[in-house]
Amino acid sequence: PVPPGVLPLCRQPPLWGRAPHVPPGLRLAPRRSFSNNKILVELDEGSGVATMKFKSPPVNSLSLEFLTEFCISLEKLENDRACRGVIITSTVPKIFSSGLDITEMCGKSTEHYAEFWRAVQETWLRLYGSTMVTVAAVNGSSPAGGCLLALSCDYRIMVENPKFSMGLNEAQLGIVAPFWFKDTFVNTVGHRIAERSLQLGSLHPAPEALKLGLVDELVPEEKLQEKAVAVMAQWLALPDHARQLTKSMMRKAVLDRLVAHREEDIQNFISFISKESIQKSLRMYMEMLKKKKS
Amino acid sequence: PVPPGVLPLCRQPPLWGRAPHVPPGLRLAPRRSFSNNKILVELDEGSGVATMKFKSPPVNSLSLEFLTEFCISLEKLENDRACRGVIITSTVPKIFSSGLDITEMCGKSTEHYAEFWRAVQETWLRLYGSTMVTVAAVNGSSPAGGCLLALSCDYRIMVENPKFSMGLNEAQLGIVAPFWFKDTFVNTVGHRIAERSLQLGSLHPAPEALKLGLVDELVPEEKLQEKAVAVMAQWLALPDHARQLTKSMMRKAVLDRLVAHREEDIQNFISFISKESIQKSLRMYMEMLKKKKS
Amino acid sequence: PVPPGVLPLCRQPPLWGRAPHVPPGLRLAPRRSFSNNKILVELDEGSGVATMKFKSPPVNSLSLEFLTEFCISLEKLENDRACRGVIITSTVPKIFSSGLDITEMCGKSTEHYAEFWRAVQETWLRLYGSTMVTVAAVNGSSPAGGCLLALSCDYRIMVENPKFSMGLNEAQLGIVAPFWFKDTFVNTVGHRIAERSLQLGSLHPAPEALKLGLVDELVPEEKLQEKAVAVMAQWLALPDHARQLTKSMMRKAVLDRLVAHREEDIQNFISFISKESIQKSLRMYMEMLKKKKS
Repeated sequence: PVPPGVLPLCRQPPLWGRAPHVPPGLRLAPRRSFSNNKILVELDEGSGVATMKFKSPPVNSLSLEFLTEFCISLEKLENDRACRGVIITSTVPKIFSSGLDITEMCGKSTEHYAEFWRAVQETWLRLYGSTMVTVAAVNGSSPAGGCLLALSCDYRIMVENPKFSMGLNEAQLGIVAPFWFKDTFVNTVGHRIAERSLQLGSLHPAPEALKLGLVDELVPEEKLQEKAVAVMAQWLALPDHARQLTKSMMRKAVLDRLVAHREEDIQNFISFISKESIQKSLRMYMEMLKKKKS
Repeated sequence: PVPPGVLPLCRQPPLWGRAPHVPPGLRLAPRRSFSNNKILVELDEGSGVATMKFKSPPVNSLSLEFLTEFCISLEKLENDRACRGVIITSTVPKIFSSGLDITEMCGKSTEHYAEFWRAVQETWLRLYGSTMVTVAAVNGSSPAGGCLLALSCDYRIMVENPKFSMGLNEAQLGIVAPFWFKDTFVNTVGHRIAERSLQLGSLHPAPEALKLGLVDELVPEEKLQEKAVAVMAQWLALPDHARQLTKSMMRKAVLDRLVAHREEDIQNFISFISKESIQKSLRMYMEMLKKKKS
Repeated sequence: PVPPGVLPLCRQPPLWGRAPHVPPGLRLAPRRSFSNNKILVELDEGSGVATMKFKSPPVNSLSLEFLTEFCISLEKLENDRACRGVIITSTVPKIFSSGLDITEMCGKSTEHYAEFWRAVQETWLRLYGSTMVTVAAVNGSSPAGGCLLALSCDYRIMVENPKFSMGLNEAQLGIVAPFWFKDTFVNTVGHRIAERSLQLGSLHPAPEALKLGLVDELVPEEKLQEKAVAVMAQWLALPDHARQLTKSMMRKAVLDRLVAHREEDIQNFISFISKESIQKSLRMYMEMLKKKKS
């Protein structure tokens, strides 16, 4: 039975209303594979499993363009009856995703900040609330927003390389993870581990990420794809409807919290990110990254 | 001190009002042992410990009759000053309880569904909110509603046989565990393990049940009774009043949630279970069980 | 970005308003070290780390005088720009703190109970909500209120001696931990471990305290100070502002709950502690302690 107040995560329209920034013309009919600028999507119609491959070097940073493509791609799959599950992975060596693109948060207009933040929210609402089975095949480091993407999936498999790390390291940059990043983190690892990890802005190497429960298992890199497919098959063995209602029951409270505070959260982001002290520390961080790069 | 808004779980009447389906004539005076059709109850007045033995072969399924007996027996013990603790176990080999009786949910009237579901609710409210110390001596498999009974106790000891498994496997049958099954599960193993286990409808073999925290310890079958008695003695060493107030403080939020949504939950159950697609999948499941049996 | 409804834990005034029992004359200018009757405070202005040493033999019990000193000392440090972190430890061998002073709860006036309980609340609000990094260097046993002090810090290091134990053992004394003790416990170890430990009034020896997550690590006694300093340095490497906002995000819900129910909680304490049955069991407990001592 459906618990009171719990609505199913539904395909069309999604729980949180339609994404305002997805141009209707881009809602294509389902097809076997489509590639945009930043993400390659392949759908195996036999198994009903799509793979979304991040292909935005050097570090798959989550720019407004990337997030928009991500939302469009996910919506297409969500509406495609041939698709029941999505595997998310990266084609960039050593990096799953480096998280939010700092250039989107630096020296831009208030309007730009609002648009960008809405896209970040939309991405999480769609992925954390997806009716499809979502598996993260984490084949590289995954800080901040990259970690959020992985945590929003139903299952996480990480390459066992201890050089790859994962975590919400916002505090290291002098910024604060939004409450819904935190809620997602707490739902995954519990309150105490979250409290410590978020305050320290920790990036946990793969073995530690497994120990803390940030990921569900580690595999050698060459086994990652195979393992993701096997896990997906296990989850797809369940009847969709019962699995979806159960997922909604587990995640709806936290999804609803952002939906209820969405505009407020955007205003908070804008006022925080517009502070001169925050802008300065982000500029310094970017300088450091540039020097490191050259 | 009593935290605000937390009332003690009290003996008479229970927090959630009197059970509507317990005929007053059946509220017998306390005695050393009483046996109904489905459950044998033995009370050791020396130690103050009762044992409720499920004796409803082949699988101790939770029929309306079973649940009614369970509630009556528990109420008798609850009101019996000689009784401070209850051990729940099974006399049926290899099965603790197979969960809700599917025949009660298949091809029956709306009134029957309502009566049955109220009995399921009542069972959980009485057991999860019992003022007595409750210990589950799990000597067989314990899926779905059987798992709920075990999770509603204060402590769970399971026979270490890996052929015995436990879990809320509703999703496997195409149905969804009610929110209060989920709340009980989350309170026991945390959000992440619950999210994964409930979506997959997993049945965890005893060693895994221990690892996940579904049970508190494993023992060889021949040590089960002895262990249950020892654990009970440890819990009964505490002053009843302080222990009861503490138990209430930990469980009241989740109990109150069902009490507040009880009629809604019944209506949800009825409309869900009355769907032709659900009826069909339950009929198929029963056919499968029959074939397996013969 | 700051999540909606989450205010930073701020230095002056603290979130929960000013402490009514701190005489303004005692708010001294910062200095290197100050000692009152019960607590010695040393501030290393170079590192910005203060150490608060409990020096109230025989067992550092939390009397009204002790708690008042604690709040005054913490407020001084909180308002001192030279101080960013506090290490809490004991100078009394084998005891961190034995918890609330039972003599304050026995045979006193209603007014005294109210004043005492307000000081207990104030202590927790200030410590759990401190903007500073707080590290408990637990060098002895730490039952009840002593455990609460440790759990309210950001990090807990305990001496690995299995004779030292920690827990909320109120139920053993026939009393009940207040809901905010419980909330703090649950935030540290999760619901299930809390439910069991609080009902049994368990005191967990150091190795078990580590296993359950009550403390973060164990060290040999001679390494305790060094380890506390190293952990503090790790936490102080983070920008204060981001760390403080993150801490607030994690702890504010639970702090707010007491703030909202503070007077009610005091009334509950008074009516509970004034019961003759409770007074009797506390007197018996004190008798037992006296006999044990002599």
